[in-house]
Amino acid sequence: MSKVLAALEAALGDAVATDEASLRAHRRDYWSRSELTDWLGESASLPLAVVTPTSTAEMAEAVRICRAHDTAMITRGGGSGVCGGVLAGRDQVVLSTRGLSGLEQLDEHDLLATFGAGTMGADAENAVAAAGYTIGNWPQSIALSTVGGWVATRASGQYSTAYGNTEDLIYDLEAVLPDGSIFRSRPTPRAAAGPDLRQLLLGSEGTLGVVTRVTFSLRPQAEHGIRQAFHFEDFATGIEAMRQVIRPGWRPPVVRLYDARESRRHFRDTCPKGRAMLIFLHEGPRALAEAEAAAVAVICRELGGEPADRQTVDDWFAHRNTVPSWRELFEQGLVVDTIEVATDWRRLNDLYEATLARFEAVPGLVAASAHSSHAYRSGANLYFTFAAAPGRDGMLSAYDACWQGAMEAAAELGAGIAHHHGIGRVRRAWMATEVGAPGVELLRRVKQALDPDGLMNPGVLLPDS
Amino acid sequence: MSKVLAALEAALGDAVATDEASLRAHRRDYWSRSELTDWLGESASLPLAVVTPTSTAEMAEAVRICRAHDTAMITRGGGSGVCGGVLAGRDQVVLSTRGLSGLEQLDEHDLLATFGAGTMGADAENAVAAAGYTIGNWPQSIALSTVGGWVATRASGQYSTAYGNTEDLIYDLEAVLPDGSIFRSRPTPRAAAGPDLRQLLLGSEGTLGVVTRVTFSLRPQAEHGIRQAFHFEDFATGIEAMRQVIRPGWRPPVVRLYDARESRRHFRDTCPKGRAMLIFLHEGPRALAEAEAAAVAVICRELGGEPADRQTVDDWFAHRNTVPSWRELFEQGLVVDTIEVATDWRRLNDLYEATLARFEAVPGLVAASAHSSHAYRSGANLYFTFAAAPGRDGMLSAYDACWQGAMEAAAELGAGIAHHHGIGRVRRAWMATEVGAPGVELLRRVKQALDPDGLMNPGVLLPDS
Repeated sequence: MSKVLAALEAALGDAVATDEASLRAHRRDYWSRSELTDWLGESASLPLAVVTPTSTAEMAEAVRICRAHDTAMITRGGGSGVCGGVLAGRDQVVLSTRGLSGLEQLDEHDLLATFGAGTMGADAENAVAAAGYTIGNWPQSIALSTVGGWVATRASGQYSTAYGNTEDLIYDLEAVLPDGSIFRSRPTPRAAAGPDLRQLLLGSEGTLGVVTRVTFSLRPQAEHGIRQAFHFEDFATGIEAMRQVIRPGWRPPVVRLYDARESRRHFRDTCPKGRAMLIFLHEGPRALAEAEAAAVAVICRELGGEPADRQTVDDWFAHRNTVPSWRELFEQGLVVDTIEVATDWRRLNDLYEATLARFEAVPGLVAASAHSSHAYRSGANLYFTFAAAPGRDGMLSAYDACWQGAMEAAAELGAGIAHHHGIGRVRRAWMATEVGAPGVELLRRVKQALDPDGLMNPGVLLPDS
Repeated sequence: MSKVLAALEAALGDAVATDEASLRAHRRDYWSRSELTDWLGESASLPLAVVTPTSTAEMAEAVRICRAHDTAMITRGGGSGVCGGVLAGRDQVVLSTRGLSGLEQLDEHDLLATFGAGTMGADAENAVAAAGYTIGNWPQSIALSTVGGWVATRASGQYSTAYGNTEDLIYDLEAVLPDGSIFRSRPTPRAAAGPDLRQLLLGSEGTLGVVTRVTFSLRPQAEHGIRQAFHFEDFATGIEAMRQVIRPGWRPPVVRLYDARESRRHFRDTCPKGRAMLIFLHEGPRALAEAEAAAVAVICRELGGEPADRQTVDDWFAHRNTVPSWRELFEQGLVVDTIEVATDWRRLNDLYEATLARFEAVPGLVAASAHSSHAYRSGANLYFTFAAAPGRDGMLSAYDACWQGAMEAAAELGAGIAHHHGIGRVRRAWMATEVGAPGVELLRRVKQALDPDGLMNPGVLLPDS
């Protein structure tokens, strides 16, 4: 047995698992490409151990032991990441946050809820919902992802247009830094006390520390909600409707535009062929929700939007997190993935068309489509889905070609390469197009300063030097 | 003439000033303590030169030359900082951003406006206002501060409760890093592409780079605005009214509660003695502003709030940025400063009382008061003003004692030590109470990684090791 394993077991006992089932279950996340190589039968290496500390002190101890033994640490939450942010190699140790789980404190006066970082998103939301509150973060992965994973990847939820993304929802954070020290940000609603150090952990994808505790600033559940939808001549007109809704200051939690293909896929019975469906949820005090719904309806109608059947919208809410597994799709001969990017309003439709054109040039492509689900004053995201059926031998290369096409289209238009899934392994070669060579160097220096031996989740985020 | 000066003059010519008037005018900011020591006659050292580059490339060149000559660089914008963030010593070079000035681009479709970092806040706001837009950042210093200074200090404006603080208003940033490279963040509405590197510059106070260009995501000027105010039994009831307004989701741009002393100072004719005045501005589409104003009035009345005269509120808006200069106050024998802190709703009134008690224990104190001007879901800020008349010889020690009292009160209650003025020199000894020893070490490592020789604004932000 290796020395690091002996030291971990001596210090942490039952928190250390080395059985093959545990190693296999924790070695990676839900990256489509990892699933595909597994499915194709590529023999995958297993990590040395999975450590599941049940306290921050234990997590810090695990980090210190791994560091002392020059052993790489791969932090894993729910494993729902789709960018290859978790892919443990031989001789590496997986640090699972799942032992740091549950609601630690709920302060109804101050709207604060503190969770262990390994709490599943749905469990966290349910815990505060029982008392009449909401975290307001509704990623499609809510049942599969942890609140610490939301921080580590800068996750976004379906209600982000009103409620913001993870960085807007957190109040304070605790994390074990690469040197084993425990950082806790000041619990305060806002500070001008140097750079916001929480931001080094938000999006760090396990490279700069292990998030161990998360406090959210909650909202009371809305007094009133109104759902409505409109279908538009085309995607570009739908984008223009989104822009005109956001511009004067309306903030519906859900503003979600499906292109014609996805509209037909989701709303076959109610959305005419070739038209783009735009869904809204208005929420808040009744007077606010009603004023917003009325104003939004006027904007949409002026752009030719036709009101859609209410049942349609309810159906979307009921089934919005239901998706087939990668494996079900592989079995049908399909290699599939999603890619989210973002840009300003002006370039959004160009980015939509350029990216689809790139997909369509890939041999074996059978479907490509997009929706926009997160709107801001100056732009929005696009969330593409591609599917190719190039035959078993062509699946990996089709996958890589679709990603390359999407990343190049974003780079050529000056768009952001990642809206909310993160970088992981799948995007890291394009980091310099996102933040420039000076930005990559900046991140590299910060990484070197905090983790000089490169032991925290090596192989993600930063491109090869 | 020193070698660095010769090199700067050879490269940058007229951008380099060494006349005494320039050196004197740029050597410090508007920290009350610096003003006081000047007024008391302490002979102040002057920097070596003031360099005012007129392009980012020139700024980068200046940084590289200073670095090559191991010369400290003190970045200065409008000089309106009140924490001693700018205080240039002998042999140091002041880098003024004021040559990087003006609106470079206004995109009305995407609500984007790009400015040189040295653009004065009021000039920036006026430039977009002329086309019907607003940046939405209204610090009291708006006529005296630069947009780059807003970034470097994490400034907040009077309308922050709806529109957010500087970090919520920026779209992308450009900065010269300590190594002379030029970082530009990706212009995109939102990203999950590693840690948000802009956040290293937000609040960096000149220690991690020189912000050279700022793009804001604008808002159209509001269709409708409604002003109203209420006076309350006491400060604690006013705080409760603020909390109950924010809680269900209302977001008036201005939510501003004056304690009884400040209410009498500002609204002598309309606010009964001993009562706390709470001012609101509701803005946006007319239906939204009207719904919000009506709901807020109900909340305030239920808590015993009595509507104040409308003229009162208009007077506040007309005169809100009028303050006497430190020097006028010194001449009256008064040493005066303001201190802003923040905490959750639960502790806000305790922090108010504890801090006032600390001030009142300082010999010579003649006045202490506070207001709250920035509200969040889980808490708000407090903005204290103290005035002491301890005689000329006691002014410095009274000043230091008031600051020490306020910082200790915040630390004892676990409150945030700085809401929006920054750390500079006046708060740096308390940084460990804000972010803990691991947070200070984290910041120190980042600083060391980016600026290994410690040449960018030494002496601020970080406590002595």
